[in-house]
Amino acid sequence: MNDETTELAAEGHRVWHVPDCFLPGTSVGDTPSHEAFCVLNVSGTEAQVGLTFYFADREPISTDVRVPARRNIHLRSDQAEMIGVALPADVPYACRIRSSVPVTVQYSRLDAQEGYELMTTSAIPVA
Amino acid sequence: MNDETTELAAEGHRVWHVPDCFLPGTSVGDTPSHEAFCVLNVSGTEAQVGLTFYFADREPISTDVRVPARRNIHLRSDQAEMIGVALPADVPYACRIRSSVPVTVQYSRLDAQEGYELMTTSAIPVA
Amino acid sequence: MNDETTELAAEGHRVWHVPDCFLPGTSVGDTPSHEAFCVLNVSGTEAQVGLTFYFADREPISTDVRVPARRNIHLRSDQAEMIGVALPADVPYACRIRSSVPVTVQYSRLDAQEGYELMTTSAIPVA
Amino acid sequence: MNDETTELAAEGHRVWHVPDCFLPGTSVGDTPSHEAFCVLNVSGTEAQVGLTFYFADREPISTDVRVPARRNIHLRSDQAEMIGVALPADVPYACRIRSSVPVTVQYSRLDAQEGYELMTTSAIPVA
Repeated sequence: MNDETTELAAEGHRVWHVPDCFLPGTSVGDTPSHEAFCVLNVSGTEAQVGLTFYFADREPISTDVRVPARRNIHLRSDQAEMIGVALPADVPYACRIRSSVPVTVQYSRLDAQEGYELMTTSAIPVA
Repeated sequence: MNDETTELAAEGHRVWHVPDCFLPGTSVGDTPSHEAFCVLNVSGTEAQVGLTFYFADREPISTDVRVPARRNIHLRSDQAEMIGVALPADVPYACRIRSSVPVTVQYSRLDAQEGYELMTTSAIPVA
Repeated sequence: MNDETTELAAEGHRVWHVPDCFLPGTSVGDTPSHEAFCVLNVSGTEAQVGLTFYFADREPISTDVRVPARRNIHLRSDQAEMIGVALPADVPYACRIRSSVPVTVQYSRLDAQEGYELMTTSAIPVA
Repeated sequence: MNDETTELAAEGHRVWHVPDCFLPGTSVGDTPSHEAFCVLNVSGTEAQVGLTFYFADREPISTDVRVPARRNIHLRSDQAEMIGVALPADVPYACRIRSSVPVTVQYSRLDAQEGYELMTTSAIPVA
């Protein structure tokens, strides 16, 4: 172990996209279907993070969260208290993540509609 | 909620590749096998999107769709009415996506041949 | 349909890495475990593609394949006649793909050791 | 087969992030849940690799490993003897990988909590 992490500058990008989001409305098994927008902030500065959700047929909606310095938060799409907005289930959508300091973002989904099914990808940096 | 999204410039890239596509011709369970080419257009301009499909042993085929301003469309490979062309099932292929304005693209597949199986990745930006 | 694809320049990169490869030696169900290195060549020039496989405890091995102009090939790791070399099963390895013309590469695995399990990711462009 | 690999310069990046890590504490079936941080070093120089793990509510922890020249190592998160630290199970976390020479990194997870479930993505290059 060392103290390198206490001196790191911000790493990553300020704007990320996740074009394929979907929150299944049903689940079998013990774990509910959910998505996670996972944000890593290695810098010494708290990140102000804005999330905007895009849909096929309605206006985008936005919300804000914070990711502390040298912390990693897995933002759950099924937990309105965590992301500040209740997302509609069973609707295709996308997410744009904007951060006050450079961060990195990965997106994962547990689809438990017919079993326990995972998929993941890096979000796409755009700025 | 805020109005930031009404003023965004285009974000992303104009050309994307998905080298591993495959539309399974059979399905078990309630949800049919399908793929989704998910396009996010955060700009204020409608995107004219050209899709070209490449194969191992035949000439490419092309089609066109539109993605409205500030909208996200999940283009289903199994819905000819959505993408404007009927894709062959059970054939390895690839997809090139070209957009009139910068967008982002993610590819996902539900393979229901032997269960309910998901995978996803960002498309690859090339221009 | 249009003729745009007949005039495309090469798109993508000449060198790609896939750090996590693994060819399961066993399978349940009808489809054998396999991996696919999927290469998309949108250019008008045939691509000479060199594959080098890296391991934890032995020297790399190399082989060569061709991807025709305007074609997409899904190279199967379990088909020695397709890639020109017999890969060891049940051994962690990685793959470096080098192409004479820019291409794009995606990696997918069907792990059928305990069911029908898929995962995919873009290969990583390095040059 | 050829000798090209003996002359390669380093390829990739020196710093990578994986924002979505999670080591399931339980498993059904024959294979235990685990994650793999897969590092490919195509260069002729051994890579000194530092791993730092970030959490939601505690300080990061760091460890070090080595990846020999022209070798590929799949670092298992469930094998403390392999990575030099015992990671907590059932806790969301992230990983930062720093290498003395450019390398590439891919992250995969086998979640065997309710079956045999795989997901993978490239790590995100940041420097």
